[in-house]
Amino acid sequence: MELKELVGLKAAEYIKDGMTVGLGTGSTAYYFVKEIGRRVKEEGLNITGVTTSVQTKELATELGIPLKSVDDVPYIDITIDGADEISEDFQGVKGGGGALLFEKIVADHSKRIIWIVDESKMVKHLGAFPLPVEVITYGSICLFNRFEAKGYNPTFRKNADGSLYLTDAKNFIIDLHIGEITDPKALAEELIHYTGVVEHGLFLDCVDTVLVGTADGVKVLEARD
Amino acid sequence: MELKELVGLKAAEYIKDGMTVGLGTGSTAYYFVKEIGRRVKEEGLNITGVTTSVQTKELATELGIPLKSVDDVPYIDITIDGADEISEDFQGVKGGGGALLFEKIVADHSKRIIWIVDESKMVKHLGAFPLPVEVITYGSICLFNRFEAKGYNPTFRKNADGSLYLTDAKNFIIDLHIGEITDPKALAEELIHYTGVVEHGLFLDCVDTVLVGTADGVKVLEARD
Repeated sequence: MELKELVGLKAAEYIKDGMTVGLGTGSTAYYFVKEIGRRVKEEGLNITGVTTSVQTKELATELGIPLKSVDDVPYIDITIDGADEISEDFQGVKGGGGALLFEKIVADHSKRIIWIVDESKMVKHLGAFPLPVEVITYGSICLFNRFEAKGYNPTFRKNADGSLYLTDAKNFIIDLHIGEITDPKALAEELIHYTGVVEHGLFLDCVDTVLVGTADGVKVLEARD
Repeated sequence: MELKELVGLKAAEYIKDGMTVGLGTGSTAYYFVKEIGRRVKEEGLNITGVTTSVQTKELATELGIPLKSVDDVPYIDITIDGADEISEDFQGVKGGGGALLFEKIVADHSKRIIWIVDESKMVKHLGAFPLPVEVITYGSICLFNRFEAKGYNPTFRKNADGSLYLTDAKNFIIDLHIGEITDPKALAEELIHYTGVVEHGLFLDCVDTVLVGTADGVKVLEARD
């Protein structure tokens, strides 16, 4: 079994009847959502899903998972999502799949957050993975130029056909290739102060538990200990 | 002549051949844009306009003003725009017309900013006018509830037919009715830290000159003295 599938299945064990569940986006969350769909269908699991992207919404709908908007629930009991990188002190970079904004909105309303990753995502310091920044299309080249002047090596996210990638909220993504991020909090502060920046992929002080798929099985790491 | 028209015409005097000009949005900026259109047509004024809304883009196009996107100019020489409120220390609230996001993006790339208002907009402290906050539609009710819990008396901006107002970037506007804003900088900091907040109507430390239409003529106030 692939490590991503291993942690996806493990994460599903945290989901109990009656919960409102944030459903993450990406190749690892995919296995989690599939397993929840199976349990809804085969075991009569009774949950409400809140999706983090159009992509996951389509998958969950196909699987018959009952869904509500984040705006139609008082809170989310638990959100299971992937991550692109997690540092030793449990700070994360997300958004490789382009869903960082809705993922952060859902995370913001969740009582417990679990990230599921294979062991390749666990790093000492963040920064090997590009840091996505979601930006308003109007003025995006101005922002790009500013990031370039700062030495952040920006690139516009593109689709396979070379056209500019549009997020579910119809914004662009600029990926920053900064290298090692020594102070994620300072960088997050800087980024949110640019006019036109809607959100960035730094998810700081938000995860509770990380499930890491390794060749020896799933390691459970508690971030709040 | 109406005071709004008086300052709109006065502002046009600041515009010279060869300039790249930010064209504001709203009932006062309207008179400025009309006058620029007249000078382009009748006097051969040679400028490039950068618009702050779809509404102003349509007006400027109709008037034959040559336009470029903010992304296609290295900078803007001067931007003329209205304001909903300006305090004694030259901090402003903008966004009554719903264009705050694009107005702030254009302002951000402008070398000089002039606000044009009638004297009713000059106040001791900000806060009598609602403070608009542009938010992502997904999660907007969650944000609304948070603003309500903070005592900010939020209301969703609506169209005349009762439907929710959508900005040019397809976001919602939540208007905050806070009353006197004693510390605009602290409030701005707080607002940009909410996930889902794209921009807010506080325009701080950005205006250079204010033209105020009064019964005795136009008063010119320099903010940077």
